[in-house]
Amino acid sequence: MAEKKLFDYQNNENVALFVVVKGAEVRLAKNGKKFIAFTFEDSSGQITAKFWDASETDITSFQAGKVVYLTGKRELYQGKPQIKLFKLRLAQEADHQTATDFLPKAPLSKSDLEQEINQAVFAITNPNWNRIVRWILQRHQTEFFDYPAAKTNHHAFEGGLAFHTVTMLHLAQAICAEYSFIKQPLLYAGIILHDMGKTIELSGAMATTYTLAGNLLGHIVLIDEEIVRACTALKIDPSSEELLLLRHVILAHHGRKEYGSPVEPEILEAEVLHHIDDLDASIMMLQGTLEHTEPGNFSERIFGMDGRHFYRPEMKVIDPKTD
Amino acid sequence: MAEKKLFDYQNNENVALFVVVKGAEVRLAKNGKKFIAFTFEDSSGQITAKFWDASETDITSFQAGKVVYLTGKRELYQGKPQIKLFKLRLAQEADHQTATDFLPKAPLSKSDLEQEINQAVFAITNPNWNRIVRWILQRHQTEFFDYPAAKTNHHAFEGGLAFHTVTMLHLAQAICAEYSFIKQPLLYAGIILHDMGKTIELSGAMATTYTLAGNLLGHIVLIDEEIVRACTALKIDPSSEELLLLRHVILAHHGRKEYGSPVEPEILEAEVLHHIDDLDASIMMLQGTLEHTEPGNFSERIFGMDGRHFYRPEMKVIDPKTD
Amino acid sequence: MAEKKLFDYQNNENVALFVVVKGAEVRLAKNGKKFIAFTFEDSSGQITAKFWDASETDITSFQAGKVVYLTGKRELYQGKPQIKLFKLRLAQEADHQTATDFLPKAPLSKSDLEQEINQAVFAITNPNWNRIVRWILQRHQTEFFDYPAAKTNHHAFEGGLAFHTVTMLHLAQAICAEYSFIKQPLLYAGIILHDMGKTIELSGAMATTYTLAGNLLGHIVLIDEEIVRACTALKIDPSSEELLLLRHVILAHHGRKEYGSPVEPEILEAEVLHHIDDLDASIMMLQGTLEHTEPGNFSERIFGMDGRHFYRPEMKVIDPKTD
Amino acid sequence: MAEKKLFDYQNNENVALFVVVKGAEVRLAKNGKKFIAFTFEDSSGQITAKFWDASETDITSFQAGKVVYLTGKRELYQGKPQIKLFKLRLAQEADHQTATDFLPKAPLSKSDLEQEINQAVFAITNPNWNRIVRWILQRHQTEFFDYPAAKTNHHAFEGGLAFHTVTMLHLAQAICAEYSFIKQPLLYAGIILHDMGKTIELSGAMATTYTLAGNLLGHIVLIDEEIVRACTALKIDPSSEELLLLRHVILAHHGRKEYGSPVEPEILEAEVLHHIDDLDASIMMLQGTLEHTEPGNFSERIFGMDGRHFYRPEMKVIDPKTD
Amino acid sequence: MAEKKLFDYQNNENVALFVVVKGAEVRLAKNGKKFIAFTFEDSSGQITAKFWDASETDITSFQAGKVVYLTGKRELYQGKPQIKLFKLRLAQEADHQTATDFLPKAPLSKSDLEQEINQAVFAITNPNWNRIVRWILQRHQTEFFDYPAAKTNHHAFEGGLAFHTVTMLHLAQAICAEYSFIKQPLLYAGIILHDMGKTIELSGAMATTYTLAGNLLGHIVLIDEEIVRACTALKIDPSSEELLLLRHVILAHHGRKEYGSPVEPEILEAEVLHHIDDLDASIMMLQGTLEHTEPGNFSERIFGMDGRHFYRPEMKVIDPKTD
Amino acid sequence: MAEKKLFDYQNNENVALFVVVKGAEVRLAKNGKKFIAFTFEDSSGQITAKFWDASETDITSFQAGKVVYLTGKRELYQGKPQIKLFKLRLAQEADHQTATDFLPKAPLSKSDLEQEINQAVFAITNPNWNRIVRWILQRHQTEFFDYPAAKTNHHAFEGGLAFHTVTMLHLAQAICAEYSFIKQPLLYAGIILHDMGKTIELSGAMATTYTLAGNLLGHIVLIDEEIVRACTALKIDPSSEELLLLRHVILAHHGRKEYGSPVEPEILEAEVLHHIDDLDASIMMLQGTLEHTEPGNFSERIFGMDGRHFYRPEMKVIDPKTD
Repeated sequence: MAEKKLFDYQNNENVALFVVVKGAEVRLAKNGKKFIAFTFEDSSGQITAKFWDASETDITSFQAGKVVYLTGKRELYQGKPQIKLFKLRLAQEADHQTATDFLPKAPLSKSDLEQEINQAVFAITNPNWNRIVRWILQRHQTEFFDYPAAKTNHHAFEGGLAFHTVTMLHLAQAICAEYSFIKQPLLYAGIILHDMGKTIELSGAMATTYTLAGNLLGHIVLIDEEIVRACTALKIDPSSEELLLLRHVILAHHGRKEYGSPVEPEILEAEVLHHIDDLDASIMMLQGTLEHTEPGNFSERIFGMDGRHFYRPEMKVIDPKTD
Repeated sequence: MAEKKLFDYQNNENVALFVVVKGAEVRLAKNGKKFIAFTFEDSSGQITAKFWDASETDITSFQAGKVVYLTGKRELYQGKPQIKLFKLRLAQEADHQTATDFLPKAPLSKSDLEQEINQAVFAITNPNWNRIVRWILQRHQTEFFDYPAAKTNHHAFEGGLAFHTVTMLHLAQAICAEYSFIKQPLLYAGIILHDMGKTIELSGAMATTYTLAGNLLGHIVLIDEEIVRACTALKIDPSSEELLLLRHVILAHHGRKEYGSPVEPEILEAEVLHHIDDLDASIMMLQGTLEHTEPGNFSERIFGMDGRHFYRPEMKVIDPKTD
Repeated sequence: MAEKKLFDYQNNENVALFVVVKGAEVRLAKNGKKFIAFTFEDSSGQITAKFWDASETDITSFQAGKVVYLTGKRELYQGKPQIKLFKLRLAQEADHQTATDFLPKAPLSKSDLEQEINQAVFAITNPNWNRIVRWILQRHQTEFFDYPAAKTNHHAFEGGLAFHTVTMLHLAQAICAEYSFIKQPLLYAGIILHDMGKTIELSGAMATTYTLAGNLLGHIVLIDEEIVRACTALKIDPSSEELLLLRHVILAHHGRKEYGSPVEPEILEAEVLHHIDDLDASIMMLQGTLEHTEPGNFSERIFGMDGRHFYRPEMKVIDPKTD
Repeated sequence: MAEKKLFDYQNNENVALFVVVKGAEVRLAKNGKKFIAFTFEDSSGQITAKFWDASETDITSFQAGKVVYLTGKRELYQGKPQIKLFKLRLAQEADHQTATDFLPKAPLSKSDLEQEINQAVFAITNPNWNRIVRWILQRHQTEFFDYPAAKTNHHAFEGGLAFHTVTMLHLAQAICAEYSFIKQPLLYAGIILHDMGKTIELSGAMATTYTLAGNLLGHIVLIDEEIVRACTALKIDPSSEELLLLRHVILAHHGRKEYGSPVEPEILEAEVLHHIDDLDASIMMLQGTLEHTEPGNFSERIFGMDGRHFYRPEMKVIDPKTD
Repeated sequence: MAEKKLFDYQNNENVALFVVVKGAEVRLAKNGKKFIAFTFEDSSGQITAKFWDASETDITSFQAGKVVYLTGKRELYQGKPQIKLFKLRLAQEADHQTATDFLPKAPLSKSDLEQEINQAVFAITNPNWNRIVRWILQRHQTEFFDYPAAKTNHHAFEGGLAFHTVTMLHLAQAICAEYSFIKQPLLYAGIILHDMGKTIELSGAMATTYTLAGNLLGHIVLIDEEIVRACTALKIDPSSEELLLLRHVILAHHGRKEYGSPVEPEILEAEVLHHIDDLDASIMMLQGTLEHTEPGNFSERIFGMDGRHFYRPEMKVIDPKTD
Repeated sequence: MAEKKLFDYQNNENVALFVVVKGAEVRLAKNGKKFIAFTFEDSSGQITAKFWDASETDITSFQAGKVVYLTGKRELYQGKPQIKLFKLRLAQEADHQTATDFLPKAPLSKSDLEQEINQAVFAITNPNWNRIVRWILQRHQTEFFDYPAAKTNHHAFEGGLAFHTVTMLHLAQAICAEYSFIKQPLLYAGIILHDMGKTIELSGAMATTYTLAGNLLGHIVLIDEEIVRACTALKIDPSSEELLLLRHVILAHHGRKEYGSPVEPEILEAEVLHHIDDLDASIMMLQGTLEHTEPGNFSERIFGMDGRHFYRPEMKVIDPKTD
């Protein structure tokens, strides 16, 4: 719709729009009264605001997940945009607002993502890898197409997990075309499963946190466990060479032990999968930061990129591809 | 018996005894002829020797696992003892020699080790932990009491895996007595299972190598897989808190990600298990080196101890405990 | 006594009790007035509170070391408990309160600690090590049984230094029982002396800071200096092998140069002492954090444990040992 | 042709073929006589051999670059194949052998490589980047299509530098198709120039060594110098934003300062170029090792891949793409 | 003049003096009003102050670079001195104040610095090194004698760059006197040019920031570019050995790749230059901190010195040199 | 004298001269006979040679420390010069040769070194520092002017320890002249004592090894012990500020804990001493390597300089200082 979004407003401009409450933390002000530290979100991004002298009713009403109508002013505070609140009210039935409409989403629709995944599964010509991928996909289907790929950092949006997977499949296809000796079915199977354990490690698409299993076991071990379970169900030997290869590709995908892989890549496809994963995560992290940076300026320093900051050029480049 | 062992001989003393061939690598000498680089072993340790101008018959006869009667002279070569070979012959039936009698063994007998393990299992009072430990022990019983705890470094002898486990249980008992808030059943269950995956990771007690599953998955993931399998068989929920705790204790036992644990200790018992494992491995590695070092000298530098060398004191200490 | 302690109160409950002022830092509020940032303490732990618009009389009265009667409300501020102050008054003679009664103390009484240390000294059968330990103990007796083992982190309570030492002696006894080749007298002498330099490095039991000698020389060099002094007094050769061993065990007890040991363990007992020290410090640091964590939750991240956080399980374990 | 190559022979098989002398190092044997340590090469790979009791004539004749006819036997020495020499003679005119025919070459012909590069230059639509790339290409054309991409490790063959560049351009095209916000002209210009400094850093295609400029300045600074020179020649401002971007992309392409980049990637295209470079180098290094590894075995440990070894699977995978 | 400077005042003393506005950041207070976070400076150092409820006129008037007359009180806030503002007014013509008079300056006058540099240039007896140094000096003369040597940390004052260079020349002279085999002309040429790129990397003497070229290329590459340009202008071969040596000495002066040198010292003079640079920077950083530390106290922790803090002794030392 | 030294001969030139046996290691050849691996030395450097088929008489005669008359030929073996032995005989009385005349020596005579040290002691105007330095110097005088400064690496020659100290004093003088705020007496006292512990850590000037005290305590703790002893003898308080400063300067002189300093520099003079020590050691290590490198070549990689190799330029530089 043509309605203005959070990031369509300029600094020092008055704002009036529906947003969803992403976070609402109650704190104690120095004057002893309570205030709510809000994070609001719509599909254009997230912004913070402070609600001073909050009553118990305010605290009860304005909770995470609610759609609210917000009036205020966008301002700059220590270099970051925030909202100075004028007024806040809950959306009512008559407003016809749905919370999930406000969440950022993957650029591809769920049905497009499903179709891409299905095509890739079709290309896994080794029967056992194919059966295992399908068995696991079926059990985690709902979460796989709904969850983000990470709590923060990159692909932290609804459908992010499947979108990250599909992008990696595209890159894998191009790489296999370049290097004919890579086993494409193994690489595809590995990519589809590599982050599937996040459907157990994370709590969901909204207010994402780590589950206890996520904290104590981690998504790498969790998906390996699923593969073993699939083997039992499908009567496939989990210690045959083809299964050891598939499991290794997934266990090793963080590339180094210090990043949480219990083994490091020791077959070609494991090394390649790790590179593709790293490449897509880096580009998405960078792009997520640069799209909120003004041309001619450096971004904030990005924790997940060794604390580097990145420059968004002023110049326009004529790109025959897109122009 | 009163027969002299390999390390009962002095340098420059003639030797004549039965030993087992631990390794026999055929190489090409600079004169173009083949020679065999032997490693001989008896229960006192290992020593090397070169067999020059080896015929094809020699190569076929003197293979790893054979018992041989060796005459020669112990000498020092670049600071290490070796045997200068005079003559070598295969043991014959009449010699009444059995290869396994020559391998170093754990200081406790197999039945003592079994009894100790059984007592510890008995002390695991949580029913699900107890059932899982027993289910897995039963499946790996033979290997568990036969395998070494590592390919080299420490406890690299027959029964080493069970002996390492039993020593850790002793230390755990003392630590639990000191700190009453440690959950002893969880610590015991974790200790018994923590290295059980080595029965799959390693190839066996003689000429130990890594299996393909050992290389590509590693013993930490391999034992976690067994626990999941035990849960299926015993109808225990592998994602209940009690199971997450047990699995975490084992997954985290290397203490740091860079040492191959996919997660780092995040519960008390995981931290304690890691310390006990490290303590026993360090002491055994040190002792194994120091017992071949002359009093008043430094040992060789030990790779597994950050390349440090260790001093064996000359002085005798009157120890009321042992004297 | 049956009086409620600081950590017996729940969040949002009104509190009224005597506590000791552990810290009282005067700061400037944004309105230009002074306030006092208090840390209060009793034997159950420490908690902070802010005292706004402090007069000069307030500042003079409510200083570190004073016992005060406090009324207020326990609240949660950014996930940590704090006190919202209603009123504060100094304890008066009639209240019969003594500051030192409010400090956390070692679980063992001073006389129990002394008895344990004496027994261990008795077991040091090497005459020279025995005489040196007794000579140094006598010079630092008062501080040794009074000081904490560290400024913060672990055993940061009255008597913590001696308690840490005694716990390590218990563990050492069990370890020597398991590995008969360890020289128990050397290990005992090393343990008793290893942190004795902290009686010079630290300023005392209350408001503990580092002394200039502590900063510029460190407790490891300070205790080595004492041993040299003991040798002079007792006419023992400080460069004899037995003295080099004792001094090495102590100099190397941090295990690695980057942790401040000028030499790394190069004899067996030095390696073992380092492990015991590390084990006890880790367990006490963890336990100190977990006892203030709610079951089913993760603790805060612990700086001294590589920034890890730890989970306190919900489940109860039937422990035959303690139940 | 159907003639057998070096790596078409099995171990212990007699060999008889023309090869080129890649290296010929004269050394002193223990008997005081000289021998030549040869490295022979043909398009299938490299192998070593020792030539005992070499006369001065032998030493003068059999020098690097010469084609020789070799008879001998392929053998295994410490796990690596080598040739036991029977006889060696120089190729004569009548043999119609040319040294350069024996060198391994890029899988694409020089004219194909040129055509690919030209197409990519055509796609650099920014006029200044385009002119600079063409100016530099023209000056280094001969070396660029002739040199290897590295002294050892990867693409260490004739034409390797251009082949590495062309492969990276293919990958870049696929990546730009996936992420439309990447400036393709900048990425292409960066890729074509990124390793061009190696034409100055290295000595050539045969017996490749580092030049003095290569050692003291390195190829990254050397190519930046060329860009500055191009700017002078073409009257382009080297400190304009478009030039700073191009130079940064190239200076940062090693990704981290410790790998020799004076600055780390701080624009999107620099980050992407670094990933593509790393990906192609890793795959080529791996493939170069795996093609000399037997199926079902692990390769040697690869220095440039953190000392990891890699497994070559036994199983065949039906790949719809290539089958 | 005898007027009191900022650091001549004690804590809690009223202040009244002219200072220059070094920084003036506008922020939003919690009450929704704007305030200015000031940094004031005079030749004795820098101090901060907050200006509450700032009007738009205030914001427009009190900008960086302005001289202001300030009345207030020096106070301690979280261990650091700050000014509590009473009143602030712009200096007027009648006050006869010039902003640049308030900036800290190098201890040597500009003409002294010039004379020292000229003498050193005179000692560069190799004709090509001499011509290049003079060509570059001439182009950057103004900035070289005006700029600081770093944005913060050390020599962050007007003329700091030339002063740092002159001090290094003094040290180099003493070192060459001690080690006669060092090539003094090469060392001198390297020192004069080593940080000259900072005249491009930094924005100037006031409110110093990094330029885009500084961020994307860095001062090490920028000065190498100038040398290449000088070679072109003076018709000197930039790839001759003497030029490679000079360029290497400068490229390597950060000593290690991780500190931004694309190559590490590989000739004697490069190693020596790095040590001299490091020594002078360390001493100046330390001295800048210690002169604001009270005797008998430790300084704050210094980020650029691995986070160490430094002690300023109480004792006076009779120094025959200065007393 | 005009006699040719070891390094006056060219490769492939016959040699005939007196040298001293620096090392004589008896090893077993592959033919089962013994040979002696010699290291010969004269004041120009060290060279190796192998003596084949050594008889027991040879082994007894040609031991370390003996002067021998050697005829043979200098050759290159794997890039390093060695001697091919023709004949070897012990020097006889009539040859008038003394072993110590063949050892490399410090460039300054012992009496010059003593005079320099005495002058520096004279400049230590603080009475207590002065008395301590003189007390310690007196006890270690003989060794101090005789020992090397290190076992290998740098200043590994007779008198090297005192020469290293004197060079550092020269540099310190120049640095104090540049930075008037450095306490010269403290720096001088620190320099004279900083490596004095090496007279206990090392075994002597010939065939230098580490003593047991050197291994287990290290020279840093050993000299601190001497200072404490000096305090006792001279009735100086070792915990006064002036003594803490002196001891800190010495304890911290390795600069970082990982290099064996139990504390890191926390006063100005400690930081400066560390830099001077590092500078002199680096230059001497480099020079020792470069003087055996041909102009226009790179040296071997130097272990003590992070494995870097160094280039010795071909060009001659006209140095007004020395020409």
